[in-house]
Amino acid sequence: MNRKVRTLTIAFAFLTGAVAAQEVKDDFKPSIFNQSGQLYPQVNSQGYARFKIKAPMADSVRVSLGLGGSGGTILARDADGFFIGTTAGPMDEGFHYYHVMVDNGMFNDPGALNFYGSTRWESGIEIPAQDRDFYALKDVPHGQVSQVLFPSKSTGITRRAFVYTPPDYEKDMKKHYPVLYLQHGWGEDETAWSNQGFANLIMDNLIAHGEIKPFIIVMTYGMTNEIKWGGIRNFKIDSFQTVLVNELIPYVDSHFRTLPDQLSRAMAGLSMGGMETKKIALANPGVFSYYGLLSGGTFAPDDLKTDQQKPKLVFLSCGSKENPANVKKAADELKTAGFNAVSYVSPGTAHEFLTWRRSLKAMAPLLFR
Amino acid sequence: MNRKVRTLTIAFAFLTGAVAAQEVKDDFKPSIFNQSGQLYPQVNSQGYARFKIKAPMADSVRVSLGLGGSGGTILARDADGFFIGTTAGPMDEGFHYYHVMVDNGMFNDPGALNFYGSTRWESGIEIPAQDRDFYALKDVPHGQVSQVLFPSKSTGITRRAFVYTPPDYEKDMKKHYPVLYLQHGWGEDETAWSNQGFANLIMDNLIAHGEIKPFIIVMTYGMTNEIKWGGIRNFKIDSFQTVLVNELIPYVDSHFRTLPDQLSRAMAGLSMGGMETKKIALANPGVFSYYGLLSGGTFAPDDLKTDQQKPKLVFLSCGSKENPANVKKAADELKTAGFNAVSYVSPGTAHEFLTWRRSLKAMAPLLFR
Repeated sequence: MNRKVRTLTIAFAFLTGAVAAQEVKDDFKPSIFNQSGQLYPQVNSQGYARFKIKAPMADSVRVSLGLGGSGGTILARDADGFFIGTTAGPMDEGFHYYHVMVDNGMFNDPGALNFYGSTRWESGIEIPAQDRDFYALKDVPHGQVSQVLFPSKSTGITRRAFVYTPPDYEKDMKKHYPVLYLQHGWGEDETAWSNQGFANLIMDNLIAHGEIKPFIIVMTYGMTNEIKWGGIRNFKIDSFQTVLVNELIPYVDSHFRTLPDQLSRAMAGLSMGGMETKKIALANPGVFSYYGLLSGGTFAPDDLKTDQQKPKLVFLSCGSKENPANVKKAADELKTAGFNAVSYVSPGTAHEFLTWRRSLKAMAPLLFR
Repeated sequence: MNRKVRTLTIAFAFLTGAVAAQEVKDDFKPSIFNQSGQLYPQVNSQGYARFKIKAPMADSVRVSLGLGGSGGTILARDADGFFIGTTAGPMDEGFHYYHVMVDNGMFNDPGALNFYGSTRWESGIEIPAQDRDFYALKDVPHGQVSQVLFPSKSTGITRRAFVYTPPDYEKDMKKHYPVLYLQHGWGEDETAWSNQGFANLIMDNLIAHGEIKPFIIVMTYGMTNEIKWGGIRNFKIDSFQTVLVNELIPYVDSHFRTLPDQLSRAMAGLSMGGMETKKIALANPGVFSYYGLLSGGTFAPDDLKTDQQKPKLVFLSCGSKENPANVKKAADELKTAGFNAVSYVSPGTAHEFLTWRRSLKAMAPLLFR
């Protein structure tokens, strides 16, 4: 997460929380991302989160989420060896990573499932969004998410990708599909778009409602360089570009029924994945036709002037708590310069996964048309 | 894990450990199941495990693994806010679940990956086995492991399965494959055979070496009833049987290129999954032709006498630290009664995943011949 954005978000939400704190509704329910049978963490209808951690002999337990003065929620000991606490204010709708500090050691919440973020498996909690229906698990035909192990000569190892194939993929063995290469953000990995992003369920639902033409999504790990906090400005794209363009795309085209041409290939990514999309798209003008930057920067018309073939679409998005004016302005300038550019702003969200779930939903109907 | 077996194992290993404790080799390396970049937990060439947990203000940190007097390893505080400790003796080769008690609260080791066992996501550590080559990730063609979401009217929910398809599955669209339905043990789920079982890599390697005819493996969650510790004797198979036989098998046969007949269908399971295999096989004599019980009980000739069509194979296995005499005796009695029965005993292992990885390797070449 961008540190500047995070700081702003916390400041805003803290004020909101301080106002709302006097009327916390007592309708807390287990988060949908709890481990099987676990009652905590819980979320109420206003977006407050409540945590309950067993640590009978601990002196202090703190949760990294919750907008308190220390940037987290300090839990209080109860009589039964548990520490309990509620966030000082409501959280943004959607998904949040967090961890638990037990006597200053960093652990995960035993009640929650883990998700890969910040270069580690972190606890995750979901604040139900008003529009959560579009990524809900429903009784519709479901596609598959397949783990693929592909050889990478350039990095000298076997690498992993997950490939979403739509529900009708197994029905007609002669049908071929366009492909979206979809990248995660810094500190995340190839599991993010399926686990916390619900990319497969978003696609299943869009397809079931006839809102998109079915396509394949390929998600792989976008970090082949060493990247530490603060080091992302020095990020070199070459190594991952080789993996993606020279190794993964040919592998996918030979192991799945793809349409292996530029007009049937898109690339998009969130945050760092947007930066990767921009760099790789510009350095490889014959490979993709659709570019999506989700909270991941913008294209200027000048960026695209050396492109011999205009992209069919430039999609730019972010959360309303990020820098929506910048995204809209960039899309307007692209449109003025004759490009097919579309901007999308996710209401009430910051640099977090509900922004990107909604961005995928908004972008998918515009691809491969 | 069977409690009786666990107690016996601990007693044996504790004695071994006490003898070997004076010559612990200083060649510790990070476990292969550590999170990216994490140096601890570590394992040495003798099978000792060493843990290092940061908890600067904690009073006590204990790891549930390691054969000490309390059935675990008590870590000692060092000067830098870490707790460090080494198991009192070498561990069995292979995979072990564990957790960390921090001031009497149960957490996972932040250095290790998590695996679903004991009805929760637990930390996992791998003690390298002498024969680990058969489940190593190698530069051979790899099959896919696909997440499938299938409708289940009987349980009223969408359920999940993972389906292994062999490397050549995408090459010849006209080829159809036999299917092994492979079940996890109590407290585990449909992720176990791929994550800690390496089922896909075992298959990839066997296929690469020409040791088996490629087949599909289907792994789903085998617990539809409420099962608590000690309640497994009252387990009723009906609910899971309906899911497997009436819902999952038809789904797989209509979404994968299977050979949808009895002669091309096997069922096997570990521990509770073996019990499920036995019950379902006997109650559905026309469905499967190959039965495998991995540390999961035995068949007697009388069990099979009502079977109109003899099974093509009964495979029985366990670890040498379980009850191998019982498994061998059962296989002998089946053979005497005219059945094709094979037993396999995993050397030096107990009721744990190396036993079952080896069992899959031993069973796979005997299926669908």
